Amino acid sequence: MLRKIEAIIREDKVNDVKAALSEIGIVGLNMFEVRGQGRQGGIKLVGRAGTYQVNLLPKIQVNIVLSDRNLEAAIDAILHSAHTGEPGDGLIFIYPVDEAIRVRTRERGQDAM
Amino acid sequence: MLRKIEAIIREDKVNDVKAALSEIGIVGLNMFEVRGQGRQGGIKLVGRAGTYQVNLLPKIQVNIVLSDRNLEAAIDAILHSAHTGEPGDGLIFIYPVDEAIRVRTRERGQDAM
Amino acid sequence: MLRKIEAIIREDKVNDVKAALSEIGIVGLNMFEVRGQGRQGGIKLVGRAGTYQVNLLPKIQVNIVLSDRNLEAAIDAILHSAHTGEPGDGLIFIYPVDEAIRVRTRERGQDAM
Ligand SMILES: Nc1ncnc2c1ncn2[C@@H]1O[C@H](COP(=O)(O)OP(=O)(O)OP(=O)(O)O)[C@@H](O)[C@H]1O
Ligand SMILES: Nc1ncnc2c1ncn2[C@@H]1O[C@H](COP(=O)(O)OP(=O)(O)OP(=O)(O)O)[C@@H](O)[C@H]1O
Ligand SMILES: Nc1ncnc2c1ncn2[C@@H]1O[C@H](COP(=O)(O)OP(=O)(O)OP(=O)(O)O)[C@@H](O)[C@H]1O
Ligand SMILES: [Mg+2]
Ligand SMILES: [Mg+2]
Ligand SMILES: [Mg+2]
Repeated sequence: MLRKIEAIIREDKVNDVKAALSEIGIVGLNMFEVRGQGRQGGIKLVGRAGTYQVNLLPKIQVNIVLSDRNLEAAIDAILHSAHTGEPGDGLIFIYPVDEAIRVRTRERGQDAM
Repeated sequence: MLRKIEAIIREDKVNDVKAALSEIGIVGLNMFEVRGQGRQGGIKLVGRAGTYQVNLLPKIQVNIVLSDRNLEAAIDAILHSAHTGEPGDGLIFIYPVDEAIRVRTRERGQDAM
Repeated sequence: MLRKIEAIIREDKVNDVKAALSEIGIVGLNMFEVRGQGRQGGIKLVGRAGTYQVNLLPKIQVNIVLSDRNLEAAIDAILHSAHTGEPGDGLIFIYPVDEAIRVRTRERGQDAM
């Protein structure tokens, strides 16, 4: 079966995450920038005029469709490589996938990956 | 169980939607810009040289992963706050989610939200 | 039942794909730019200083939520219109969808499409 990982991570961790996935043989992926907030509803910054709230911080969402045989290894690689221990390290979401098809060859399923 | 909401809304409704969700305790979300068309295949504008068709209008896609206990309340909040009554108010899509993991703490499922 | 198609295609094939879908009556869709790599981990280019690797090539991700009665026809239309036969033609992913709601009318399911 196929799954999709959406990992919303810090921008400066993209290369580390890509390298950690590559080390376990996972190279197919795509990404784009999202703006958002976690449970804290943004972050509080302390300036000269007092504290203020910054919302909708930029993150990178990395998307990986893969066999669920590789799912836990990929999650582990992301958890290690995206981690700082500070708030804002991000979230990983997993989704079911019905089918994958490579346009050039029309291969389907695991073969398309 | 977890679900994902993808709400494709007018750009000038983002703050209202964010506020309406926040009022019912939903703050975790992300968003990005998409370009697209609805059933009408774009919109017809009337100019001096006649009517012409504009395709691929910009919208904001707001993504929210949440417990399905909060799903209908979140949908209601979006339907109220994103509504004008004119064509182009947008669409809401709901998807199943298998898992959510917070990178900082490795918490999973509802606890990660 | 509803499904979501995510088709990651060449930028210069967007108009052909849109036209091919429109011919079979599918007009509702959205798209955005992603950067990514396939199984090859980017592409090798030959320059004056030797070969080098380019990663994270830009593609367009086209998203279509539709009735699964129209799914195979839509996949066929994309496979034809996005195809060149060269590496990099892209991938199509299919996902389950629980619900769709039109904001203006509150219609749900197939009626919202
Ligand atoms: N419920 C959610 N649904 C969709 N996206 C979310 C959700 N919560 C957070 N996000 C996205 O994930 C990003 C990362 O959030 P963040 O790391 O602050 O998570 P958190 O749950 O608040 O964890 P932490 O307490 O470690 O900060 C946010 O900036 C936002 O883009
Ligand atoms: N079937 C679809 N799949 C994916 N995205 C879609 C689909 N239909 C529309 N969209 C996206 O949703 C946006 C909003 O569409 P729009 O509000 O015009 O919906 P509509 O169904 O035409 O409703 P209305 O009749 O009220 O205009 C579009 O600009 C496009 O980005
Ligand atoms: N496993 C994957 N998960 C998510 N996105 C992917 C995955 N593999 C590739 N992509 C995205 O799809 C795009 C198209 O990839 P590409 O056409 O090179 O596929 P491929 O499987 O390598 O096929 P080909 O051998 O024909 O090149 C990539 O640039 C990337 O954005
Ligand atoms: Mg946070
Ligand atoms: Mg419309
Ligand atoms: Mg390739």
